[in-house]
Amino acid sequence: MEILRICLAQINSTVGDLEGNCSKILQRINDAKKSKADIVVFPELALSGYPPEDLLQKPHFIKKNREYLGKIINNSADIFVIVGFPGAQKDKIYNSAALIYNKKLLGVYHKICLPNYGVFDEQRYFASGTECPVYNFNGKFKTGINICEDIWHQQGPQKIQSLYGKAKIIINISSSPYHIQKLDLREKLLKNMAVENNTHVFYCNAAGAQDELVFDGGSMVFDNKGKLTARAKQFEEDMLYTDLVIDKALSGKTAVKNKSVLNINVKGFKTKPKEINENVINKKYGLIEEVYNALVLGFRDYVSKNGFKKIVLGLSGGIDSALVAALAVYALGKENVVALTLPSRYSSEGTLNDAKCLAINLGIKLYEIPIKKLHDVYLDLFKDVFKGTKPNITEENIQARIRGNILMAFSNKFGWLVVTTGNKSELSVGYCTLYGDTAGGFALIKDVPKTLVYRLSEFINQKNGRELIPVSIFKRAPTAELKNNQTDQDTLPPYNVLDKIIDEYVENDRSMAQIVKKGFNRETVSRVISMIDKNEYKRRQSPIGIKITPKAFGRDRRMPITNKFDE
Amino acid sequence: MEILRICLAQINSTVGDLEGNCSKILQRINDAKKSKADIVVFPELALSGYPPEDLLQKPHFIKKNREYLGKIINNSADIFVIVGFPGAQKDKIYNSAALIYNKKLLGVYHKICLPNYGVFDEQRYFASGTECPVYNFNGKFKTGINICEDIWHQQGPQKIQSLYGKAKIIINISSSPYHIQKLDLREKLLKNMAVENNTHVFYCNAAGAQDELVFDGGSMVFDNKGKLTARAKQFEEDMLYTDLVIDKALSGKTAVKNKSVLNINVKGFKTKPKEINENVINKKYGLIEEVYNALVLGFRDYVSKNGFKKIVLGLSGGIDSALVAALAVYALGKENVVALTLPSRYSSEGTLNDAKCLAINLGIKLYEIPIKKLHDVYLDLFKDVFKGTKPNITEENIQARIRGNILMAFSNKFGWLVVTTGNKSELSVGYCTLYGDTAGGFALIKDVPKTLVYRLSEFINQKNGRELIPVSIFKRAPTAELKNNQTDQDTLPPYNVLDKIIDEYVENDRSMAQIVKKGFNRETVSRVISMIDKNEYKRRQSPIGIKITPKAFGRDRRMPITNKFDE
Repeated sequence: MEILRICLAQINSTVGDLEGNCSKILQRINDAKKSKADIVVFPELALSGYPPEDLLQKPHFIKKNREYLGKIINNSADIFVIVGFPGAQKDKIYNSAALIYNKKLLGVYHKICLPNYGVFDEQRYFASGTECPVYNFNGKFKTGINICEDIWHQQGPQKIQSLYGKAKIIINISSSPYHIQKLDLREKLLKNMAVENNTHVFYCNAAGAQDELVFDGGSMVFDNKGKLTARAKQFEEDMLYTDLVIDKALSGKTAVKNKSVLNINVKGFKTKPKEINENVINKKYGLIEEVYNALVLGFRDYVSKNGFKKIVLGLSGGIDSALVAALAVYALGKENVVALTLPSRYSSEGTLNDAKCLAINLGIKLYEIPIKKLHDVYLDLFKDVFKGTKPNITEENIQARIRGNILMAFSNKFGWLVVTTGNKSELSVGYCTLYGDTAGGFALIKDVPKTLVYRLSEFINQKNGRELIPVSIFKRAPTAELKNNQTDQDTLPPYNVLDKIIDEYVENDRSMAQIVKKGFNRETVSRVISMIDKNEYKRRQSPIGIKITPKAFGRDRRMPITNKFDE
Repeated sequence: MEILRICLAQINSTVGDLEGNCSKILQRINDAKKSKADIVVFPELALSGYPPEDLLQKPHFIKKNREYLGKIINNSADIFVIVGFPGAQKDKIYNSAALIYNKKLLGVYHKICLPNYGVFDEQRYFASGTECPVYNFNGKFKTGINICEDIWHQQGPQKIQSLYGKAKIIINISSSPYHIQKLDLREKLLKNMAVENNTHVFYCNAAGAQDELVFDGGSMVFDNKGKLTARAKQFEEDMLYTDLVIDKALSGKTAVKNKSVLNINVKGFKTKPKEINENVINKKYGLIEEVYNALVLGFRDYVSKNGFKKIVLGLSGGIDSALVAALAVYALGKENVVALTLPSRYSSEGTLNDAKCLAINLGIKLYEIPIKKLHDVYLDLFKDVFKGTKPNITEENIQARIRGNILMAFSNKFGWLVVTTGNKSELSVGYCTLYGDTAGGFALIKDVPKTLVYRLSEFINQKNGRELIPVSIFKRAPTAELKNNQTDQDTLPPYNVLDKIIDEYVENDRSMAQIVKKGFNRETVSRVISMIDKNEYKRRQSPIGIKITPKAFGRDRRMPITNKFDE
């Protein structure tokens, strides 16, 4: 009984770190060999990191990638390697997969379906490939290779590879960005593709984060009946080994002539002698735990890949900063999280105590720096020029910006990353102060709606089996505490209403009329969408954060600032 | 002698303002009729404004555009109208030109060549057209219509329209973003296209600004020998009328069969009886005056289209803020410009006096608000936590952020737009304080290199025939005055060297090795490109500003923040 062992090497690359990515790939090739893998597969653009964005427009970046690919080729003795890299041919750049065996580059597949929607700009950089290679391994099994988006199109390359090329195994390399329950989407898709084309499907995803994007791993294997036979871990690097018995069914009939299919014979390919192993199906997280893990991975990678060790954040005594602090501690360790509590004249005894209690629960260092005196000096400075005006948001924002300045001073002095604590609901309607609570390098929960903030916080307490986040924080009405007796709901509709309107307007692109039709108050809807539109300038200057919804602010939703469309 | 009068209605649309844009278009149609024009032409996406970005993903936005197009159709009695709008067909969206005559929609052209590089994302939104309409007006003259990028491709639609469709007149509608000397580029291109295809070319560009982009007008007409016969004003709205004698040469031979060409007969079209007028060729600005006008238009449009009346800026006594103040006065009037001078303990008598002198010269209101006391209170707050550390950039940045807070307080209190004064050289290397001097809604000269800041300032003095900007400002070594005896050149190479390195690295995508080869010091180049790379996070949180170079920071250059490529 001849066994084919395919290893999906679900790695965490760093954009632009060719040396580091290459050495990781070489190490994994070695590991795969030791584990008797016959084929080892790496994610889309694993060599350059994904997405490299405008680095792709530097000719020397492309050249350097090719040099490092050479190193990989030289280290492929006795194993078939598939690895993503930015390929070049004549004056065109491609999103490519190198196909390597025994120190030889057998061929390069160029991605055909280039996504140019949502967070993707691939048509900005890449030309589309035109050929679908199918590898015939000594006449024993036939394999088609394609890349990410390619497999999301029913009539795409895998159809050509299986229908004309008679491929019985499809290997897809991806760097597929996470959003809530994306894994389920992929699972459904791959299952259907396996059944429809009667192929075994090997799907290798990246695991790691790059700026706003999290690649959530969860590489998968389906057999040709559409049964899930193996799944890698979610949100971490993994080596997923799958054993497949080589039988007649894998050899495929003679290929049908088709101009797109490129038939390549892999001669002299030998599978390594081995005992068959049972395939592993790692567990799948529930919705809240999944988001939790996405935030932790995205944050940890941003911090470490940008060379930070410690982070600092403001603890207000509210639920948002409590959640961010807890996530930060889980991601980086309590010794790397520093909190400031910056009480103003309007801060209550309760919020201050909650902040202190939380810091004790989390075991993090807390500095208390009152801002009343500074606020007084500012107000005094403006005494004359603001004479005759009524106190308004101006005096409130001054306090938020004093806090921003203090947090940034810690950052400048000690090299700590300032993490902001605003959620998606606030950022949508601009319920935040530019250069105040938005000041910082990373906005960890900027794509988390307020209602989900509560659920994540509850999850954390459950997970820890105790009130890590004090129950009084959950119970207190949300407040910015920038004036007396202020609560968020003075200005905003209740969060469960607000979050639904945001979802309809931002994620589903519904009109005001359509949202009202769903049963929301017209005046409320009108006010909310007007706030969303008018605050584009704030979002544009806010730090990046992790995408967890199908449409995050940032590269995912590109709205003009100057915009008079109001429906 | 029958005369064809074509009017290029070079208008300034506002993104999303369908009501306003439509009513402007109707008014211009009326004006054109009164001036006996037979054909009136509006720019690309004149109805929606350009670029509408993700508004295009709202189905109700597309529908609303179609409704307003109906109004235009109803007002087209006795005139042929060509107007750009976002068209829809089945489930696809196109960048379209409506072709209207006598209250009828004769047809819709869909743009074929969709730019997806630089500032453009058209493949994100639009499907490509496949048909090239050619209009045969009563057998008397033949006209092909296409859109912007279409005419930049030698083998593009105008080739098909002239070669197969036998069009003798090509009308191209554009919203072509400005960069330095772009007009010359266009002129050269259109001339070549006219000669190569033996066609008269009518090029109608937009005139106005949208966020980062300026559309610089300068619509043009070339005859079929490649001679420039008319040119509209640059940087303002205009109605450019061109008279063409209808002779046999315009009738075109019978079209050759080609699947892309769509032959449309316009029956009953009557030219209006008229005397021939001489065509107008408006003057072309020199390089510096051109940039000056781009900045003024871009700024004026941003301010007015976003509903601001007044702006506020900090005057440091340096050349950057002097230039911004002068530009603002020219764009908005001196009564709408308010300046603050915010001296610190390190500000010299000289800079303070220069700021005052400049304000007097410009006739703008100046408030003086010293920040020393606030700085002292901050330092006192940090006394314990920063104990044992040496003063560094932290203490400097605190001052810049105090200024940011003060400027924003004026903005919040009075509704004035804060305009920042940083230039491209500073922003490139991150020689600026986030939430400090970068705090504001619009960064007027963010794409202007320091060396060009001086030239623009000299131009302003020349233009005014006096030292509007005091000569002492030109003479002083650039300094941030955030510590004693500080100058920019303590940290940065001389600006004439720095600007050249930035140009090579940012705009030309050259590698470190290539730049060194051009004769720059290796250590300097290495330091500069490392600063450019490391400060992507600052640029990402900086306000938008006007693109004047071929590659501006912002939508034009999309670099990852997390990025370890350093060559």
